Amino acid sequence: MSEKLIGSCIFGQSGGPTAVINASAYGVIRAALDAEEITKVYGAAHGIKGVLDDKLYVMDEEDPAELELLLHTPSSELGSCRYKIADPEVDDTDYKRILEIFKKYNVRYFFYNGGNDSMDTCNKVSRYMESVGYECRVMGVPKTIDNDLYGTDHCPGFASAAKYIATSCMEINKDARVYDNGMITIVEIMGRHAGWLAASAALAAEFGSGPDLIYLPECDFDLDKFFADVERIYAQKGKVLVAVSEGIHYADGRFVSEAKTSATDGFGHAQLGGLAALLAEMVKERTGAKVRGIELSLLQRCGAHLASATDVNEAFTAGKTAVEAAVSGVTGKMVAFKRVYVDGKYTCEIELLPLSSVANFEKKVPLEWINEEQNGLKHEFIDYVLPLIQGEPKLPLEHSLPRYARLKKVLAK
Amino acid sequence: MSEKLIGSCIFGQSGGPTAVINASAYGVIRAALDAEEITKVYGAAHGIKGVLDDKLYVMDEEDPAELELLLHTPSSELGSCRYKIADPEVDDTDYKRILEIFKKYNVRYFFYNGGNDSMDTCNKVSRYMESVGYECRVMGVPKTIDNDLYGTDHCPGFASAAKYIATSCMEINKDARVYDNGMITIVEIMGRHAGWLAASAALAAEFGSGPDLIYLPECDFDLDKFFADVERIYAQKGKVLVAVSEGIHYADGRFVSEAKTSATDGFGHAQLGGLAALLAEMVKERTGAKVRGIELSLLQRCGAHLASATDVNEAFTAGKTAVEAAVSGVTGKMVAFKRVYVDGKYTCEIELLPLSSVANFEKKVPLEWINEEQNGLKHEFIDYVLPLIQGEPKLPLEHSLPRYARLKKVLAK
Repeated sequence: MSEKLIGSCIFGQSGGPTAVINASAYGVIRAALDAEEITKVYGAAHGIKGVLDDKLYVMDEEDPAELELLLHTPSSELGSCRYKIADPEVDDTDYKRILEIFKKYNVRYFFYNGGNDSMDTCNKVSRYMESVGYECRVMGVPKTIDNDLYGTDHCPGFASAAKYIATSCMEINKDARVYDNGMITIVEIMGRHAGWLAASAALAAEFGSGPDLIYLPECDFDLDKFFADVERIYAQKGKVLVAVSEGIHYADGRFVSEAKTSATDGFGHAQLGGLAALLAEMVKERTGAKVRGIELSLLQRCGAHLASATDVNEAFTAGKTAVEAAVSGVTGKMVAFKRVYVDGKYTCEIELLPLSSVANFEKKVPLEWINEEQNGLKHEFIDYVLPLIQGEPKLPLEHSLPRYARLKKVLAK
Repeated sequence: MSEKLIGSCIFGQSGGPTAVINASAYGVIRAALDAEEITKVYGAAHGIKGVLDDKLYVMDEEDPAELELLLHTPSSELGSCRYKIADPEVDDTDYKRILEIFKKYNVRYFFYNGGNDSMDTCNKVSRYMESVGYECRVMGVPKTIDNDLYGTDHCPGFASAAKYIATSCMEINKDARVYDNGMITIVEIMGRHAGWLAASAALAAEFGSGPDLIYLPECDFDLDKFFADVERIYAQKGKVLVAVSEGIHYADGRFVSEAKTSATDGFGHAQLGGLAALLAEMVKERTGAKVRGIELSLLQRCGAHLASATDVNEAFTAGKTAVEAAVSGVTGKMVAFKRVYVDGKYTCEIELLPLSSVANFEKKVPLEWINEEQNGLKHEFIDYVLPLIQGEPKLPLEHSLPRYARLKKVLAK
């Protein structure tokens, strides 16, 4: 047991929002408010930018009941950012400013909730504070619908998005088959380099109403093969449902959607989108069939009403564990999940991994889980994802519509 | 009380599917199976086309438990059509064929579930059978997410779509506001000539997380006014959420989306879509802001997982009532809803309206419920729609995913 470290904490949210990132926020905030070592709990407005801008909300001022509603409030309630922090060896301006803020508020605990890039930020802050001898325990809380974080069996946020995608594909599949004329439907699903989300559409097929074909960015996309797949099923059944990951790319690396857009986000990633419409146009031209493109867009990552209770609980636990570990002396780690089957039943164990071992690595769908035709998933993937989507959280409703947390967001002076 | 009419019945589904059209199907089928006057219950494959093609499923052969799952199965389980039947005075070929099938199966009851065009079909069949002296009781069961059927306070299917739209807009609004840079989001909602669905996005705003601006096809769309609205709110808040009906049109009648497509559906309506992307492009060019277009597409009409229990119950009752009324001697009527407030509490009473009085008329959002700026709804609309979306049905799940009805669909010989 380390020495007691007394001081305040800052919690920040980063990267794209999810249905359960606020459940992790609640895990951190609740545990921090309850920890006697932590004197004050600050929430950074828009992640690390809120630290740099000295824009911190005092969580101690919030109504506990409203805080608890964070468990079922989608998106990043404190605001997020896609700010890429420099390497401290190259430019330490930001780090000096962070140190200044940490000193101003006597911050001894820093919790950061995000994906790959955010764990990198977290790792850099941790290393810098150590290098200048400022004692501050830094913990990463994983989050990403993309499920591409290295070292953890899965990520909070992924399962709820997977459940949204599977349920929506089941519904779309029902709808897209009602007429007696032919119909080809192409559903575009998020996922830049890892196909976990598009793969989740296989759950819909597994339970009787899902896609005929699924294409992931783990394999090179072959347009002729794609046309042949679609035409074969269209000839057999007259109806085709296709799920594609936004990140599918040709063998030379070009994104299939690339022709449509050239904008990039703050991290220099290409901004994808419009792929379903593009493919629909190409298939229509080729087959003459009626074709519809559907983009699940933001809906898939903010669909808290279809969240997995397993995911909500694990997200909360991840946040809570980060605080408990830090208070007990741990620093420079990310909370990770390890899957254990007890009597054949899925359980989730917590591990703490060095931030340096997870930052900037990407975990993809194993190629051996993808079928030989590279247009569908094997049962190994279903076995992997099915336990994660289980359970329906009891959503707080008001007039049969979601009742989200309403925070006061009192700024620290 | 009329004389008992003994014979079989045919039930058909027509037009675009909804989240609850199968609940009406279950109302009809269950009541018909229970009625001693009805000797056999046939479900037409793809509506009136199934009758013309002699493709009828024997509902008596189905497992009762599977039939009951129709209450929560989205889309048209028997298949739908958009077949426009000729006027019998102009061309009676189809009617002769229908009569032939009716005689073959001794059909004395015909129940047809659909929107405006389907009530027209229903009315024509009813008139023809009367004109040739073939005794057959014909009843229309209303259905349309568009809520544009004349003579009824509201339509089965509308409320569940409205609830899906309101919930999704609440979630999108949360997601679209997380970053500290500007963002304009445009959500495209179904509704060709009537704006009931896009108007339902106002529910999201009413409960704290919804669109800033809503445009309906009831008012002429003025592009300059639209730009000014968006720019004003963008300047104030840095974030704008806009909901638009797919059917918005300029003063000269041209659909705003028209430039994008020229295809038409089976009834000669223009096929709309891609409006959100088009407007997003225009707003982006104009403002230079980050703009995202989202089309709710098929999701809004097949989202059974977000159905309104009120809607499910009313849809079931509409089907059941059609059968009970027909058995008791009624014909040539559509089941309609009348809203009654008992001690301030919403209740839904059933009326039977002559098919001729509802066929081919369209009911639009009253102009006095739209604000003066024509970019939002007044409270009268909220008062109208709120009771309709109440209640969450208990959805049958399997592995935390929807468990839909699995019918055998045994063809009649």
